[in-house]
Amino acid sequence: MTDFEITDLNKIHRLPKRGHYDRKTIYGILDATILCHVGFVQDGQPFVIPTNFARQGDTLFLHGATTSRLIRHVGEGVPVCISVAILDGLVLAKSAFHHSVNYRSAVVFGRGRLVEDDAEKLRALELFTERVVPGRWQEVRQPNAQELRATAVAAIDIESASAKMRGGPPSDDEDDLGLPVWAGVLPIRQTPGDPLPADYSDSSLPFPDAGLHAGS
Amino acid sequence: MTDFEITDLNKIHRLPKRGHYDRKTIYGILDATILCHVGFVQDGQPFVIPTNFARQGDTLFLHGATTSRLIRHVGEGVPVCISVAILDGLVLAKSAFHHSVNYRSAVVFGRGRLVEDDAEKLRALELFTERVVPGRWQEVRQPNAQELRATAVAAIDIESASAKMRGGPPSDDEDDLGLPVWAGVLPIRQTPGDPLPADYSDSSLPFPDAGLHAGS
Repeated sequence: MTDFEITDLNKIHRLPKRGHYDRKTIYGILDATILCHVGFVQDGQPFVIPTNFARQGDTLFLHGATTSRLIRHVGEGVPVCISVAILDGLVLAKSAFHHSVNYRSAVVFGRGRLVEDDAEKLRALELFTERVVPGRWQEVRQPNAQELRATAVAAIDIESASAKMRGGPPSDDEDDLGLPVWAGVLPIRQTPGDPLPADYSDSSLPFPDAGLHAGS
Repeated sequence: MTDFEITDLNKIHRLPKRGHYDRKTIYGILDATILCHVGFVQDGQPFVIPTNFARQGDTLFLHGATTSRLIRHVGEGVPVCISVAILDGLVLAKSAFHHSVNYRSAVVFGRGRLVEDDAEKLRALELFTERVVPGRWQEVRQPNAQELRATAVAAIDIESASAKMRGGPPSDDEDDLGLPVWAGVLPIRQTPGDPLPADYSDSSLPFPDAGLHAGS
């Protein structure tokens, strides 16, 4: 997969060694998360709204009710910026200054369009379902005509993007190494708990745990 | 704690019953997370940048290097929107349409200012450290004059805010209840792993685990 061109939009200025512009890294981070933060401008005012998303190739999909202001606004083709971040650990140093976090983040730029075609809309909804539980789309009742009409999908073709990440131990100053303070990393992971069946879910039914995705 | 006034800025239009405007709910969500997504506008283009934050009263603090474009820009007093979201579970229904996620999210509006006063800057940096590991500020070497000069802090006085959340089981249509498909919630939690001491951290030093915060 190729790199995104480095422009004023996506350039990492601070700590450029933590910056990445290749699709493999950026898309790997996007695909490891379920929630994104969609930024857009209305009358000069920035809005950032958290929502679910899915990706296919160079396109991100958002979905919501047909009445959703977010989806309608993004669907109008205004410039949007979508950001995701995964916390991987707390980095505890011997000085306050060198405290940090380990993280993987991606920032994506593009313009949205409303997905009008029913077949493309269905494929996008399938992506949303399949990325959470692979195989789920074939198990469940798929959307009927009324549900499809009630659902709006916006597609954002990714025009520019970058990733930024930090990993590994803290980096303390030479003069501080002897201080009697624990230094290191506390890893943080998103982990699934025990499945809680709905009271109407027959207890003989198996939990669909094959390849379950527990993103951030 | 009082409520924020409902205005065009913070009003929850979709699924209004999931919306909350009281400081207790909104600040509880902010305080349960470490990473936020800061949205601002430059030349009509929205940018959303993930970063750490801390809160005190009605003020959010961001920090970074003095050379950080994000902090400098936010510090200029432009309108910003800051969003956080915590994934609490995957909601699996018997129909694709009723799949959802359990989450807690908060969206905050305000304008930033650069914190110029060294004492206020130090207090903000203390907040950043203490919210991750309570008591840490007194254990570690605190910032010296050079580190303080190299660090910029922006304060955002919260002018408007709202929270949105979903909890509980899926809600399936009556006609679907008999379908042979598992339905329920897979809870998702952020959990700490085993601490990884840095190779220069004396192995006799205890890990500072008192009240450790593992936010999203």
